Amino acid sequence: MIIANNDVAETLLKRRQRLAELIDFPVILWSGCATPRNFPANLFPFRVSSHFLYFAGLPLENAAIRLEGGKLELFIDNPHPSSILWHGEMPTREEIAETMGADAAFPMAELGLKSVDAATIAVQDACTYLKQCDILDRAVSEASTPEGIDLKLAQAIASLRLTHDAGALAELRSSAACSVAVHKVGMAATRNAKTEAEVRGAMEGVIIAHNMTCAYGSIVTVHGEVLHNQHYHHPIQPGDLLLADVGAETATGWASDITRTWAVSGKFSSTQRDIYDLVLAAHDACIAKIYPGVEYQDIHLLAAKVIAQGLVDLGILKGNADDLVAMDAHALFFPHGVGHLLGLDVHDMEDLGDLAGYEQGRKRSDRFGLCYLRLNRPLRAGMLVTIEPGFYQVPGILNDSECREKYQDVVNWERLEQFSDVRGIRIEDDVLVTETGSEVLTAELPTDADSIEQMVKNT
Amino acid sequence: MIIANNDVAETLLKRRQRLAELIDFPVILWSGCATPRNFPANLFPFRVSSHFLYFAGLPLENAAIRLEGGKLELFIDNPHPSSILWHGEMPTREEIAETMGADAAFPMAELGLKSVDAATIAVQDACTYLKQCDILDRAVSEASTPEGIDLKLAQAIASLRLTHDAGALAELRSSAACSVAVHKVGMAATRNAKTEAEVRGAMEGVIIAHNMTCAYGSIVTVHGEVLHNQHYHHPIQPGDLLLADVGAETATGWASDITRTWAVSGKFSSTQRDIYDLVLAAHDACIAKIYPGVEYQDIHLLAAKVIAQGLVDLGILKGNADDLVAMDAHALFFPHGVGHLLGLDVHDMEDLGDLAGYEQGRKRSDRFGLCYLRLNRPLRAGMLVTIEPGFYQVPGILNDSECREKYQDVVNWERLEQFSDVRGIRIEDDVLVTETGSEVLTAELPTDADSIEQMVKNT
Ligand SMILES: [Mn+2]
Ligand SMILES: [Mn+2]
Repeated sequence: MIIANNDVAETLLKRRQRLAELIDFPVILWSGCATPRNFPANLFPFRVSSHFLYFAGLPLENAAIRLEGGKLELFIDNPHPSSILWHGEMPTREEIAETMGADAAFPMAELGLKSVDAATIAVQDACTYLKQCDILDRAVSEASTPEGIDLKLAQAIASLRLTHDAGALAELRSSAACSVAVHKVGMAATRNAKTEAEVRGAMEGVIIAHNMTCAYGSIVTVHGEVLHNQHYHHPIQPGDLLLADVGAETATGWASDITRTWAVSGKFSSTQRDIYDLVLAAHDACIAKIYPGVEYQDIHLLAAKVIAQGLVDLGILKGNADDLVAMDAHALFFPHGVGHLLGLDVHDMEDLGDLAGYEQGRKRSDRFGLCYLRLNRPLRAGMLVTIEPGFYQVPGILNDSECREKYQDVVNWERLEQFSDVRGIRIEDDVLVTETGSEVLTAELPTDADSIEQMVKNT
Repeated sequence: MIIANNDVAETLLKRRQRLAELIDFPVILWSGCATPRNFPANLFPFRVSSHFLYFAGLPLENAAIRLEGGKLELFIDNPHPSSILWHGEMPTREEIAETMGADAAFPMAELGLKSVDAATIAVQDACTYLKQCDILDRAVSEASTPEGIDLKLAQAIASLRLTHDAGALAELRSSAACSVAVHKVGMAATRNAKTEAEVRGAMEGVIIAHNMTCAYGSIVTVHGEVLHNQHYHHPIQPGDLLLADVGAETATGWASDITRTWAVSGKFSSTQRDIYDLVLAAHDACIAKIYPGVEYQDIHLLAAKVIAQGLVDLGILKGNADDLVAMDAHALFFPHGVGHLLGLDVHDMEDLGDLAGYEQGRKRSDRFGLCYLRLNRPLRAGMLVTIEPGFYQVPGILNDSECREKYQDVVNWERLEQFSDVRGIRIEDDVLVTETGSEVLTAELPTDADSIEQMVKNT
């Protein structure tokens, strides 16, 4: 899905006009620069700063924009004439300025002249960060701890980026559609794969074929109990579950984030299916509850309660679901938050710490069952969030002596042993809050166990 | 191909013993740290410093090694207990030290106590670079301009890394074998692909499936005349040539680098085949000439001469091949060097500038036909080099008014127009210099036009 250029310019104009309604000081945002991988000419694929992308729309390297009163000035150097040999004809400053609808465009060297009293947000690469401090001629705090006008700017940008406009949604639907295709290919590739890496290769190959990038480091593992597992060397065996958390990002940076868990053999064991259906019930209950005004933490607690009740029904936990959630017993098996904001970043605006994820004045809980919750705000139409409940048997939690003692009486450890073939299950979709409830952007990818089995077997 | 751990330790021991024969001061090498992509928890895939990898053998993050008199001390912190939840059980400092055969192992905090008078090489990431200056308590020059003991160290390491030991060769063969498979899949995928991106997806999917990484940004393009083209959005059409320069790197960092050019339709046009066969003739002549003691620049000039003569035979150039090369007329169509060192980096040790590529005392020529040559040394057994002649119609060169005037009389511009369907062709293999000549590590992938056509058609 391509947005016509005049639509891009129109979208960008509206974004900076809305920003101008919130703040009355000039803003300079830097795009960042590519980082060498092992020598200066061999670079990591460049990822532009998301705040720059939001207002500039184009993945430009070594560029800056200045925003004031709804006006956009672009700062970028023209490509060096000799670069034609290596990189071909590249658009000029004026062509780029026209595409983005800039009001004026200058070489980078002129940025210093226009930097007085400007606010900014620190970019992630150290090289550009030093330039920011130099050109603004002051200390710039890290993005996660902005101060003064930088803090006001971060709050203003967060309030804009919290909900998505039509331009953003077109891109978000496009990355979601790619990720749906990615997971279908992953399931189909499993039957003939011998390792996690082979399934990952099939999946990421689809992202590359769409001319998109991975929005984050893929998780493709038979050890789903390791939450951020980024190893892919394990052989995959017929009795294993394979957990795949893989998402694409469009060329202009808009992300998607899908997790599915399937049986390598194509058929869940009865214990795997019991837990799968329980995680799916939590997933469905959370999505059904999404509505403007609902507190996201309540959705998290709903997932916790559905999981706690289901584990009671399966004989793994003992007691009343509300009591179990109150004592964080669900977090023995579901130790992370039920989801997060999604947008230009897979954890949208996490560079700002909890400034975007948490309503002003709220702080992370130190409760075991709440401390990993990345989003704690009332939902608003136009927000995009993930819903991703899970069940994991994490040895570091379940074998921890303090944990075992604290939860000694509420876990039936013998019954739990019968579920040893369920190391980790997560089901994750991308859900847009709408005026009337929600729309699952990733709904084309089935979640029910029968369909999942079918997709793995149909090879 | 996996090297048993005791072999790794043995290989690493020999490398540091050889280093100790060359220098008599202590050395500290840092591994580097991962760089945030858009927020601190979303990182670029980490690539360890190659000099660290050469002596440490393992892709460790946030680590350092101290080498002195053939002894190895490892500095690394144990994983934080809480990281088990997210990253699973990770090896301890002692386990890592045992794998690499370290003589001692310490937490990072103790590195400062052992840093007196140590030499180092600046790593590429700014964050670690600042730590290097801080811990050594002095200015450290960029890797491309080392000074004092750092320069002596760079020279000593370069002299070791110029030729490859058995441990390195096992890895280099492994990445070469993967890249051969990658190109076969790329050719087979072309017939059903509609864009460059789809072919790239198929190719890089194979690298990922082997649990390897791309050694460099892939080039997969119907615009091979853009030498470092890293766009993949063009549709591919039956009359196009597709140039693919894609290479894998093993988990411990050893690279490969293959280019093939094929007809999208599976059948070269007669003009495409004429030029293809000419580039192949240069490729074959260069490989046949590789022998210990031969000057690599002479191999480059041989490629230039074969191409010049071939273009005379095709009526594109006019005159005598030697004269044409002397006036750099070949460089109108073959503007880059015939190859480079290959090892832990795809342009091996290019972080050191020309220190490794150029024999001491030699400098880059400013001749149009020689200035891009990355390697200018007599060959030695154990060196691995690429051989990658090419033919390109670069508009920036051929339409340049100075160029057209200078070469007015030696180019038959009308005849050249008949070859307009040949925008770019390159054929690249990885060639090990042996005692008796050479061994092509990538020889499993055919180069002749008939075989290439067959591989594209056999879909
Ligand atoms: Mn997620
Ligand atoms: Mn090369």
